[in-house]
Amino acid sequence: MAAPGKPLIDIAQVTIVGVGLLGGSIGLALRHAGFAGSIVGVGRRAEVVERAKQLKCIDRGAPTLAAAIDTGGNGRHLVVLCTPLSTFATLFAELAACDQPGMIITDAGSTKQCVCDQAAKLLPDPTRFVGAHPMAGSELHGPDHAKCDLFRNRLCILTPSGTNSSDSALAIVREFWSSLGMKLTEKTPAEHDQVVASISHLPHAVAVLLVQLADQRKAISIAATGFRDTTRVASGDPRVWTDIFTTNREAMLDAIDHFAGALDTFRTVVASGDESEMMRLLTDVKQARDTWLNQTWGE
Amino acid sequence: MAAPGKPLIDIAQVTIVGVGLLGGSIGLALRHAGFAGSIVGVGRRAEVVERAKQLKCIDRGAPTLAAAIDTGGNGRHLVVLCTPLSTFATLFAELAACDQPGMIITDAGSTKQCVCDQAAKLLPDPTRFVGAHPMAGSELHGPDHAKCDLFRNRLCILTPSGTNSSDSALAIVREFWSSLGMKLTEKTPAEHDQVVASISHLPHAVAVLLVQLADQRKAISIAATGFRDTTRVASGDPRVWTDIFTTNREAMLDAIDHFAGALDTFRTVVASGDESEMMRLLTDVKQARDTWLNQTWGE
Repeated sequence: MAAPGKPLIDIAQVTIVGVGLLGGSIGLALRHAGFAGSIVGVGRRAEVVERAKQLKCIDRGAPTLAAAIDTGGNGRHLVVLCTPLSTFATLFAELAACDQPGMIITDAGSTKQCVCDQAAKLLPDPTRFVGAHPMAGSELHGPDHAKCDLFRNRLCILTPSGTNSSDSALAIVREFWSSLGMKLTEKTPAEHDQVVASISHLPHAVAVLLVQLADQRKAISIAATGFRDTTRVASGDPRVWTDIFTTNREAMLDAIDHFAGALDTFRTVVASGDESEMMRLLTDVKQARDTWLNQTWGE
Repeated sequence: MAAPGKPLIDIAQVTIVGVGLLGGSIGLALRHAGFAGSIVGVGRRAEVVERAKQLKCIDRGAPTLAAAIDTGGNGRHLVVLCTPLSTFATLFAELAACDQPGMIITDAGSTKQCVCDQAAKLLPDPTRFVGAHPMAGSELHGPDHAKCDLFRNRLCILTPSGTNSSDSALAIVREFWSSLGMKLTEKTPAEHDQVVASISHLPHAVAVLLVQLADQRKAISIAATGFRDTTRVASGDPRVWTDIFTTNREAMLDAIDHFAGALDTFRTVVASGDESEMMRLLTDVKQARDTWLNQTWGE
């Protein structure tokens, strides 16, 4: 909570574009943290926006960015893009058409090079844009799954880059994601995309292919809790993930190639029946994972 | 619970070899279901057996099978092997040395061809052996993680085969696993190994390789809940999983080869940037998984 008398962040209105799981949770978390300004949700589908309002994720809804921003008043205004990546070019163009000097823009997209390049190209003043990737979410979607603690203690990667992100915009955007309870770190857009390919995009692809194989072999009906957890992310939104794979192509291809090499090495160990080599591999990996669990989640 | 006056299963003693997560949970579940006979735990490590006794997983402990069975009385006796697969040949030889006509044997091993072959070869009367794979467990181990409901509503695959498993032994073993709350199905050992490679052994290998890659690239520190769930099983016991991969080599190599082919096809779609093909793939897989979730877990 902010200190009494001091606003949580010096912003009159937060406009959330896309009021699904992420956007809805941002609204809930902002209010929970004591944000006193206005929270406006933008969405194409009136019934989803209305549902987000019923659930108190937003104060009011608007069908377009222009309608949301028109009544935004003269104070500082933060716009957060929470829609699939394929909508961003259109949204940046719409933002350009209703730009105001006090407007700061951030996003919740899962790839960053493409987003930061589009912002630099399409926004009239890209120094007021700061790319962000809040590392939180689930395979569920829609405002009914929004939670005020979705972001608490999770990592948010900010990707200020040469052409974007003035110091003052970065300070506001840092304060915003921090206010949701997130831990912050910064990377270049390219670094972000490469590292996230390893720990999110490749694991997603692999989970998808495991479900596909089990389904093709009619084996899925006997699968148990291990399979359920290993493949949980494969129930994610196909549109969101198509956009991620499309916009992170180079890093995905690189991650796939490394993984295919590791799979081939593993195959060789299985084929050879070399038990001590298999024990060494499994023991090293267990130790790496357990160390990470302990450091990250205190488990 | 059994009907009043009728014993849960017509068995005087259940001897559980290996009193970790699985063996300990069997003891707890048996007692919870109203089993009135004796539950004896066998383990190499006295402190683990003692801990299992403290936790009421077993009534008493014994350091060897011979010691457990010597005092087993004259009634029908069920032995359940819950140790890693690499111990089974030794255990079958020990069982042969202290065989009794009323002894029925089952196991909880994750591969079945190898186990059933060993039973047929090493036991004096393999018709009293019925292979089983209770599809329950977790990445945790030791009796402290045992739970009386670990098996409830989970699937148990029985693998009666030509040389093993008389009808009367099968009836007892069915009754035993049912009494723990499990749903039963039957497959041949070879069918079992093939289908389980797809939904358990391959997913395990893939989870291990995802952790290895993320660790090698120093990306693991930023991983989030998706990665945690996708790779949960990679914290499993290296000895148990070395034995599984070693004893299910042919089915594993086949599953790896199919998966490598699917990964290559996926790579082609990513490289081509064909969004409609990616949408189709992700939508089909989401639908297959959601249908399975709904049918299996009512989610």
